[in-house]
Amino acid sequence: MTSAKYNVLGIGNAIVDVLSRVEDSFLSQHDIAKGIMQLIDEDRADALYAAMGPAVEISGGSGANTIAGVAGFGGTAAYIGKVRDDQLGEVFAHDICATGVSFNTPPADDGPATARCLVLVTPDGQRSMSTYLGACVHLSSRDIEPGEIAAAEITYMEGYLWDPPEAKQAFLKAAAIARGAGRQVSLSLSDPFCVDRHRDSFAELIENEVDILFANEDEIKSLYQVSGFDDALQAVRGKCHIAALTRSAAGSVIVSGDEVHVVEAVRVDKVVDTTGAGDLYASGFLYGLTHGSDLAACARLGSLAAAEVISHIGARSEANLRNLAQSADLV
Amino acid sequence: MTSAKYNVLGIGNAIVDVLSRVEDSFLSQHDIAKGIMQLIDEDRADALYAAMGPAVEISGGSGANTIAGVAGFGGTAAYIGKVRDDQLGEVFAHDICATGVSFNTPPADDGPATARCLVLVTPDGQRSMSTYLGACVHLSSRDIEPGEIAAAEITYMEGYLWDPPEAKQAFLKAAAIARGAGRQVSLSLSDPFCVDRHRDSFAELIENEVDILFANEDEIKSLYQVSGFDDALQAVRGKCHIAALTRSAAGSVIVSGDEVHVVEAVRVDKVVDTTGAGDLYASGFLYGLTHGSDLAACARLGSLAAAEVISHIGARSEANLRNLAQSADLV
Repeated sequence: MTSAKYNVLGIGNAIVDVLSRVEDSFLSQHDIAKGIMQLIDEDRADALYAAMGPAVEISGGSGANTIAGVAGFGGTAAYIGKVRDDQLGEVFAHDICATGVSFNTPPADDGPATARCLVLVTPDGQRSMSTYLGACVHLSSRDIEPGEIAAAEITYMEGYLWDPPEAKQAFLKAAAIARGAGRQVSLSLSDPFCVDRHRDSFAELIENEVDILFANEDEIKSLYQVSGFDDALQAVRGKCHIAALTRSAAGSVIVSGDEVHVVEAVRVDKVVDTTGAGDLYASGFLYGLTHGSDLAACARLGSLAAAEVISHIGARSEANLRNLAQSADLV
Repeated sequence: MTSAKYNVLGIGNAIVDVLSRVEDSFLSQHDIAKGIMQLIDEDRADALYAAMGPAVEISGGSGANTIAGVAGFGGTAAYIGKVRDDQLGEVFAHDICATGVSFNTPPADDGPATARCLVLVTPDGQRSMSTYLGACVHLSSRDIEPGEIAAAEITYMEGYLWDPPEAKQAFLKAAAIARGAGRQVSLSLSDPFCVDRHRDSFAELIENEVDILFANEDEIKSLYQVSGFDDALQAVRGKCHIAALTRSAAGSVIVSGDEVHVVEAVRVDKVVDTTGAGDLYASGFLYGLTHGSDLAACARLGSLAAAEVISHIGARSEANLRNLAQSADLV
């Protein structure tokens, strides 16, 4: 195996977030389920946007947030995702490249616009997301460069990729290349409803293709259709090399073979916006894993990055993650 | 005079801000003068954007920020400004309409893209702005609807409008209509370098057309080419009905005929980003003026809104200005 060009290469839905603060009543008026991600079509996106208050546009996309975070820690990183050749596509490309991530997926020159996620943040800091996938439906196997995948220690993919049909093929192609090259494959389950949509495929994938799994409590319980966290933990044990299970303020639990590590969350003064918490947890964890940290230290790096991102609006880190990690004696 | 449909109608350069945090060294490396606004062409905008870190897109434009703030206080407001029919133009239109402002200027369907302002925020909270005027150069007299101007108690215009040549004509047309309808005309000097570019025109305009003038200390000193604030204050006295002169943390001074009011600034815990301070001061002042407040109370409303906007990133208020004003017993 040649030396790696990237610590982590991520594949995901390339999305610009459109964030706005709302009262809880807005969610019920517009039939939006709180705290989760729903897929919407263009008409619904237009109608919801028209009803929303003033917004802020920030690059997002679950996998892209993770990869930008890996680069923020000082890791080498690449990203594959599909935008359109429009202004929001340029914004997305600028922002991820500006963090030092290698991003070369050609934008679509026709078809739907760059994807956007209408993120409604309620006073409790919870975010409810309505995603119009737009150009993401054009991500295909042709966008997977075998040389790039083989050059990454870990190929990381978001579960949301299973929503656009062609992207799923891209996902499977990338996983096969990574494994063929002796590299590792990592999956984030993304969201309990995403798990609902693709439960059997995910379970099979985790057994056969995934080395490192990220899931929060609701997602892992949904995957194995169990009601307790411990049952979920026992169910996932042995299915993949490492499972990193996050539990919001209760921290995270890492399961790897016979090892189990329970790691506390990093406290924040005020939770402003939980968007990106899971994404940034994965950033810290994957950075640690590719830089010789033990599993507990990986989890602490994850918690550190998650704490940073929930203390402000937006799902990309604002602080210098490398400096934070150094201050916490984690690198 | 018929009853007014709007408290305030604003005319300005319709701009989307692209905000990014930088160290001071970035400004010197890229030859950017700190704390002011510079006009740049498209090539320079592209080059600077490529060099900048990840950014956040938020609707801006000095006059638009003011008008959004008037609506935020609960005032009736309209805005005239030119965007292109592109994604950032849609963002601008959405955000200003979502605050309750009437905005009906047709977007340009060819020519340059919607204007953007690259706002670089240094660790001290100061903002240095590089503006590519884009579609704003197409604002013209044809965009001034006489009925709308005549229906506004105050027509408010930003000095920056004198930069694009056709917009200047629109500005003069609007001022003439407002005065002809027995309404008031208000001008913000925008920026000391903007004053430098248009000093004689501004001085003449203030004497002949302007009822309510907004200027900060640097701008009013530049206008009259004096070195002391008191000299500037004496120079402006009598030139227009009301001059509201802002002095950052030192508060503001209102001059009207023989009256002079010195009003303290509202303290903020931490200045995060000074973008929009002057714009929001004008919001509060104009809201007060159209709702029967005395001049000192107008200035306090202005200070309240300015304090809110400098306590977070972006030049549009995040908090509910009406609630803030009620808590402060100002409405």
